[in-house]
Amino acid sequence: MEREHDFIPERKKWKRQLFRIIFKSDTRLGKLFDLCLLVLIFLSTFIVMMESVDIYDAKLHNLFVILEIIITAFFTVEYILRIITLKNKKAYIFSFFGIIDFLAILPFYLSLFFPITKYFLILRMLRMLRIFRILNLMDFMNDGYFIIRALKHSSRKIYIFLLFLMIFSVIIGSMMFMVEGHRDGFESIPQSIYWAVVTVTTVGYGDVSPGTPLGKFLSILLMLAGYSIIAVPTGIVTAEMRNKRQNLEKVCHRCGNDDIDDDARYCKICGEKVVKDITPE
Amino acid sequence: MEREHDFIPERKKWKRQLFRIIFKSDTRLGKLFDLCLLVLIFLSTFIVMMESVDIYDAKLHNLFVILEIIITAFFTVEYILRIITLKNKKAYIFSFFGIIDFLAILPFYLSLFFPITKYFLILRMLRMLRIFRILNLMDFMNDGYFIIRALKHSSRKIYIFLLFLMIFSVIIGSMMFMVEGHRDGFESIPQSIYWAVVTVTTVGYGDVSPGTPLGKFLSILLMLAGYSIIAVPTGIVTAEMRNKRQNLEKVCHRCGNDDIDDDARYCKICGEKVVKDITPE
Amino acid sequence: MEREHDFIPERKKWKRQLFRIIFKSDTRLGKLFDLCLLVLIFLSTFIVMMESVDIYDAKLHNLFVILEIIITAFFTVEYILRIITLKNKKAYIFSFFGIIDFLAILPFYLSLFFPITKYFLILRMLRMLRIFRILNLMDFMNDGYFIIRALKHSSRKIYIFLLFLMIFSVIIGSMMFMVEGHRDGFESIPQSIYWAVVTVTTVGYGDVSPGTPLGKFLSILLMLAGYSIIAVPTGIVTAEMRNKRQNLEKVCHRCGNDDIDDDARYCKICGEKVVKDITPE
Amino acid sequence: MEREHDFIPERKKWKRQLFRIIFKSDTRLGKLFDLCLLVLIFLSTFIVMMESVDIYDAKLHNLFVILEIIITAFFTVEYILRIITLKNKKAYIFSFFGIIDFLAILPFYLSLFFPITKYFLILRMLRMLRIFRILNLMDFMNDGYFIIRALKHSSRKIYIFLLFLMIFSVIIGSMMFMVEGHRDGFESIPQSIYWAVVTVTTVGYGDVSPGTPLGKFLSILLMLAGYSIIAVPTGIVTAEMRNKRQNLEKVCHRCGNDDIDDDARYCKICGEKVVKDITPE
Repeated sequence: MEREHDFIPERKKWKRQLFRIIFKSDTRLGKLFDLCLLVLIFLSTFIVMMESVDIYDAKLHNLFVILEIIITAFFTVEYILRIITLKNKKAYIFSFFGIIDFLAILPFYLSLFFPITKYFLILRMLRMLRIFRILNLMDFMNDGYFIIRALKHSSRKIYIFLLFLMIFSVIIGSMMFMVEGHRDGFESIPQSIYWAVVTVTTVGYGDVSPGTPLGKFLSILLMLAGYSIIAVPTGIVTAEMRNKRQNLEKVCHRCGNDDIDDDARYCKICGEKVVKDITPE
Repeated sequence: MEREHDFIPERKKWKRQLFRIIFKSDTRLGKLFDLCLLVLIFLSTFIVMMESVDIYDAKLHNLFVILEIIITAFFTVEYILRIITLKNKKAYIFSFFGIIDFLAILPFYLSLFFPITKYFLILRMLRMLRIFRILNLMDFMNDGYFIIRALKHSSRKIYIFLLFLMIFSVIIGSMMFMVEGHRDGFESIPQSIYWAVVTVTTVGYGDVSPGTPLGKFLSILLMLAGYSIIAVPTGIVTAEMRNKRQNLEKVCHRCGNDDIDDDARYCKICGEKVVKDITPE
Repeated sequence: MEREHDFIPERKKWKRQLFRIIFKSDTRLGKLFDLCLLVLIFLSTFIVMMESVDIYDAKLHNLFVILEIIITAFFTVEYILRIITLKNKKAYIFSFFGIIDFLAILPFYLSLFFPITKYFLILRMLRMLRIFRILNLMDFMNDGYFIIRALKHSSRKIYIFLLFLMIFSVIIGSMMFMVEGHRDGFESIPQSIYWAVVTVTTVGYGDVSPGTPLGKFLSILLMLAGYSIIAVPTGIVTAEMRNKRQNLEKVCHRCGNDDIDDDARYCKICGEKVVKDITPE
Repeated sequence: MEREHDFIPERKKWKRQLFRIIFKSDTRLGKLFDLCLLVLIFLSTFIVMMESVDIYDAKLHNLFVILEIIITAFFTVEYILRIITLKNKKAYIFSFFGIIDFLAILPFYLSLFFPITKYFLILRMLRMLRIFRILNLMDFMNDGYFIIRALKHSSRKIYIFLLFLMIFSVIIGSMMFMVEGHRDGFESIPQSIYWAVVTVTTVGYGDVSPGTPLGKFLSILLMLAGYSIIAVPTGIVTAEMRNKRQNLEKVCHRCGNDDIDDDARYCKICGEKVVKDITPE
């Protein structure tokens, strides 16, 4: 994510040191900075949560406001320092994490001019996404990328599957609307579709459930369908992960191809013999 | 799906152009036509949904009727044009999408002669299936076919599994009928079977739940069973998908290795160049 | 299942013909017999279900009794004929299906001497198991055996997994008993364990749900655990099925070993080269 | 687990015999001892459960107390004997099972000095973990280790996945708090997060369910997400188990093929005889 800003900038020494503390995690101060950030993110999220609980907000409202001011101040200083220490400021500001960093401090400044609305909440909650930047620095994200890559590679198949599922739910929902004839929870087609999705995904709140024998029979079919076809996304992702595993194992010496199966003896791209004793991990 | 009607017909020029617009997606007009169709299908489905919500229907009933007339008119013209531009009209009319196209306009014309009943709803909802035709033209359906093929190949195993599951649910349901003795939700065996399916598929509405200690104990066994045997359809489909990945691909001429990836240029077992134009199935 | 009784018996001609009709499915009469049996089994099950519904039983009690007598008569005759036509009578009587056949007619004769109790229900429901005998004859059960074999091979792992899950549920259940302190649905440890299983298997009836913040927090952990570890039985069965798939593919010419992997070039048991062009299925 | 204490100690003969009875399972007395232990553990757990049920505790409180005294006495003697017969006493006392053994007897002795509190319950319940020691002796735990190892190897990926899921649930929960505006069950953000986890894990208690149309629409998205991404932990563990199947096995000396089944006697790639005594890990 930070790759574009990664080179050590040719500037005054303190800027270079500051850059290393803020953007890297290979010095003691850098690690401390990341830790502080992590603590503040969690604290900030925790405050937003507690603020929403009436009994805590009644007692501790002032404390929450003061803490929010302190945290926002820290985040603001951090945001400014990030911009100062970087050469390619624009690239950072409009990068994913640049926007997240900006949104993290925006709600407070907006609240100075506008009355605080509950929609600020979400902006303040988006601060949580900053965790991923720190995890990234701390080398925790390789496994995260593995998951994201597997999901990305199987996303087309999963979207098509979800489209099937939605159309299926819409049709079954409409049928239930006819069958259960305006009973509780089936007053309209959108309501019935809501029920169909609740059922086919095996969530089953029970706020809406069939009342007529025919409705129960249709439910049984829908439940069995949902129970069986959960196999589809699972199969897609499993096959994709199995595939991705192999990618990580060996690399071809000649052409650099890194998609070499376990049992391969020749590189499938350039035909080079695969040297067995290269051991990854 | 359209393959039988695919050849460019030897007729008047406007027919040929119309055919290309309606049945293909490789011209600007053809793409526009598909887009219009997609929008109308979604609009039509949306109207049917909104009509079923009493408060919207009370306010906007006339608007809904007018829109339905316009959409049906468009679909009718489209249906007639499809028939006109095709040589093999009969093949289209009795094809899957031909029937869907016909059913999409039928409810409106029926409602001129018969009072509108709620059963027309489903026919109008089936219009959604027309989405697949457009997705097909737009090359989105390869992944859909992958899913359908995997499900079709594993369908026998899944049917047998569902039969096991049903018989198991019927027997457990009967036992619960005896155990819970006519309590709420267990008044009859069909009711108890409904509960058993709700439980074993891990849906768990909670509209029916066991009351006696023995009933709860049986529930625990049933839940654990349902939680474990969901592995069966998942395993079947995963194995099938893994298999399909390979089946679709090629076979090496020299060593007969049939595990050749899409992007392979050399056989990974013997290093032979993979001949690209071998197409299985 | 019938293998022990399969040889054509050296007896009077009518016995041999009867044997073929009853135990085989390769003649027209044999197929008709199987079909009749299938219909009667379903009818019988359907009657038991309907009998349990008070409103149907009130109206149609006599019809149900008469149908039950007819069906039992047919099953009794069938049972006697099966014994007569077989040489090895004892093997049949004490085989799995022999016992099921006997239990299918037992409830009726018992009801002549004892008052009908609801426990007869289960015996009458066990008739459904006879379906498998017919499916077996009709060659539908290969896929069933595939599933059973995969489950049997992974059963030890799944039992251990379920033991882990049970002990985990017992401990979490006890903690919830402490936390939720005698609130509704958590009155005792067994109750709390019931809740823990409902939660960890993702069934979630909602008849019992946590009320305190700490209870909700524990629930969240339990739900996430249940959501993640469903991967364990799935992984076990998938790996087993993938393995079993391969079993069905090739057979070694020299030693008859049928467990040959896709990419094997030599038999792992006797070292014989695997001939590639043997194609199963 | 017991490996450090496994050597037969050079001491008086009765100590050696006692050691074999207590720590091994290869003599008749040793097996009997394990069986007694197993029965007592289950009995002890059962008593704790029954004690928590008010109606049983009212009637049988004295019986429960007496049984608890007897069981604790047995466990105390056993604990002392384990320490006496071992040479490396410290290693045992601070080993996992050493601590469990100590905690199993602690609650009773504490209750002599302090009033019995409900927190003793959990300590008494932890006795159940002693089952694993006995299963271990009885050779049932190979499959258990297989599961634990697969989970351990995929734990990093699963933790990252759960972190994604939690952050996703927190953000969706906050959105629902805004959308459902303080309605029942969405009074605060923590409450809404609880709902989000209940939904995304497909548990679906139904104690909290959306009431507004927009809330229901968001729920549908969340349910579909939860239904699809359950594929992620499943895929991770399945790939890991498939991998473990192979890793555990052997490597061919001639061609380096590491995919050698348990029962293989020849390498399936090069036909080389498999040397049995190579033990990996």
